[in-house]
Amino acid sequence: MATLCRPAVSVPEYVITMEETLELARSRHPDHPQLPLALRLIENTGVRTRHIVQPIEETLKHPGFEERNKVYEAEAKARVPAVVQRALDDAGVLAADIDVIIYVSCTGFMMPSMTAWLINSMEFSSDTRQIPIAQLGCAAGGAAINRAHDFCTAYPEANALIVACEFCSLCYQPTDLGVGSLLCNGLFGDGIAAAVVRGRGGEGIRLERNGSYLIPKTEDWIMYDVRATGFHFLLDKRVPTTMEPLAPALQDLAGLHGWDASDLDFYIIHAGGPRILDDLSTFLQVAPEAFRFSRATLTEYGNIASAVVLDALRRLFDEGGSHHQARGLLAGFGPGITAEMALGRWHRSDEETA
Amino acid sequence: MATLCRPAVSVPEYVITMEETLELARSRHPDHPQLPLALRLIENTGVRTRHIVQPIEETLKHPGFEERNKVYEAEAKARVPAVVQRALDDAGVLAADIDVIIYVSCTGFMMPSMTAWLINSMEFSSDTRQIPIAQLGCAAGGAAINRAHDFCTAYPEANALIVACEFCSLCYQPTDLGVGSLLCNGLFGDGIAAAVVRGRGGEGIRLERNGSYLIPKTEDWIMYDVRATGFHFLLDKRVPTTMEPLAPALQDLAGLHGWDASDLDFYIIHAGGPRILDDLSTFLQVAPEAFRFSRATLTEYGNIASAVVLDALRRLFDEGGSHHQARGLLAGFGPGITAEMALGRWHRSDEETA
Repeated sequence: MATLCRPAVSVPEYVITMEETLELARSRHPDHPQLPLALRLIENTGVRTRHIVQPIEETLKHPGFEERNKVYEAEAKARVPAVVQRALDDAGVLAADIDVIIYVSCTGFMMPSMTAWLINSMEFSSDTRQIPIAQLGCAAGGAAINRAHDFCTAYPEANALIVACEFCSLCYQPTDLGVGSLLCNGLFGDGIAAAVVRGRGGEGIRLERNGSYLIPKTEDWIMYDVRATGFHFLLDKRVPTTMEPLAPALQDLAGLHGWDASDLDFYIIHAGGPRILDDLSTFLQVAPEAFRFSRATLTEYGNIASAVVLDALRRLFDEGGSHHQARGLLAGFGPGITAEMALGRWHRSDEETA
Repeated sequence: MATLCRPAVSVPEYVITMEETLELARSRHPDHPQLPLALRLIENTGVRTRHIVQPIEETLKHPGFEERNKVYEAEAKARVPAVVQRALDDAGVLAADIDVIIYVSCTGFMMPSMTAWLINSMEFSSDTRQIPIAQLGCAAGGAAINRAHDFCTAYPEANALIVACEFCSLCYQPTDLGVGSLLCNGLFGDGIAAAVVRGRGGEGIRLERNGSYLIPKTEDWIMYDVRATGFHFLLDKRVPTTMEPLAPALQDLAGLHGWDASDLDFYIIHAGGPRILDDLSTFLQVAPEAFRFSRATLTEYGNIASAVVLDALRRLFDEGGSHHQARGLLAGFGPGITAEMALGRWHRSDEETA
């Protein structure tokens, strides 16, 4: 059985607080007709602090797509290996034990991908499979877990390494002045997460079932406009309402498994924003407290895109994990609009029977 | 057993011949000090014709990354569905029977990916898994086949749809004047290919084993430089020599399977260029005739990136396929430098025993 082990997470050293974000919005857009609305939306996110890879003065400049992408590459190469090493250590495996690397990131673009660089730079085998995914956005963390689960189902002795590297601050676009863009300027943060899915052994979530769901005809609700200045993030104001169609998809997946999505022991949910967590709590009839890991991520780091679900899971581990055989749901949401969902049971190795 | 069924392939209606390519190189770069070398390299590719999505006059203009990417999106949406429908029909499955769509393309970038658009535009189920891959370049065709194989190994009743959509002409960069760039201007073509991997039933290659191999420390041999003007393809002059390290990787994979890579019944190989096919023939000690499908693709379409292996396989189907249980090797090569390799046996449904 594939086991999703403890994620390692790292956020960069530069910090911007909610107060600084609000002050920046006021000072940069004093005459914006919808400034009060933007400020209110930012305040409502509940994001207290975010971590970014460069000082805020650098972040606010736009030196061009080429330069931004070079910063992405340099920062990823400087920061990812230590997080990967920690994830390997925590899972009790060596780089040489890894059969596939699934690297997800929507905030920089490299070909060859970071998968090739990691294989060359660490002790991974030359025959490690590479699955780099750039186009699933925030849903990619869940997708990475699910594809790792599939891989270990196909090859029960295999181990998969998942890496989510998101430097959202490198997609800041100073010329984007819509309210959605101003909100995003106060919502997204930078972060790196990595985790191992072990085919045999390991402590964490034993993955039992996964599924995807695309809400029909919502492709343009979350999207990139690709321009000479790089990726411009477009966020439709209907996005916060998406838990109404997605909650039934979560219920259906749980139902297929003989479970009730409203009655599970733990929940690891993408913290896209506060409304998503509030609504999902309502539609699933789950106490808000059940989403405390996601809320903590949002409050302390902001929305770190595909890394959110791994950071939320890391917080469950930090709390001591759940009880042996506890049933849980993990879900990432992102462009499409796509949900990537997984069901599994908590496995404590001290309870190992076989 | 996962069976890779007949690929459907389509190339665009605008054609450019080798003679026209050479004439363009002469007229656009009359004073280039290495023009004679570039002309000789282009002639040596053996590429007689290439098909492109726009008339050559439009192709030679660079209207900017944003506009180019819009052309990519419009052309992909206009051209991909018919190819996908043909692949589904040839495999004898419906869109609703597909469990995962693996869409590979390195010549345009969209988020959400074309996977979401296809699910919405055709009769695919909302719970179809999406695996969009942009960063494996020419190796992505082989990677798509291998990930489809893995998926059907994990879920033996599942069906996977593979789509390779490459409009290399949209990555033409008029300011890139190195000899490698001038060569690429005469090497790459546009094409779309799709194929179904059926978990049960189907006629074609029964996939038995797959593997990846990354040649150490060759990341910068084939790469994209990502700039405001889009993707700039960089090709190191050492790339044509890569069959020397890759042939042993192919031999090793075959050896693990109890096969001899020099003694198989059919070969479906990425036609990156003529030297790759010549060298592989030498290093594997296989008659050049064994690579006739790859050579035909190269001659008629140029290097159509991730779609090459699917088009080469289509040509084997057009020849009537191989004999029942014939053993074959399929290999895609691309940035990394990465090889994506698969072994399988030809399966004729009229020979079905069970």
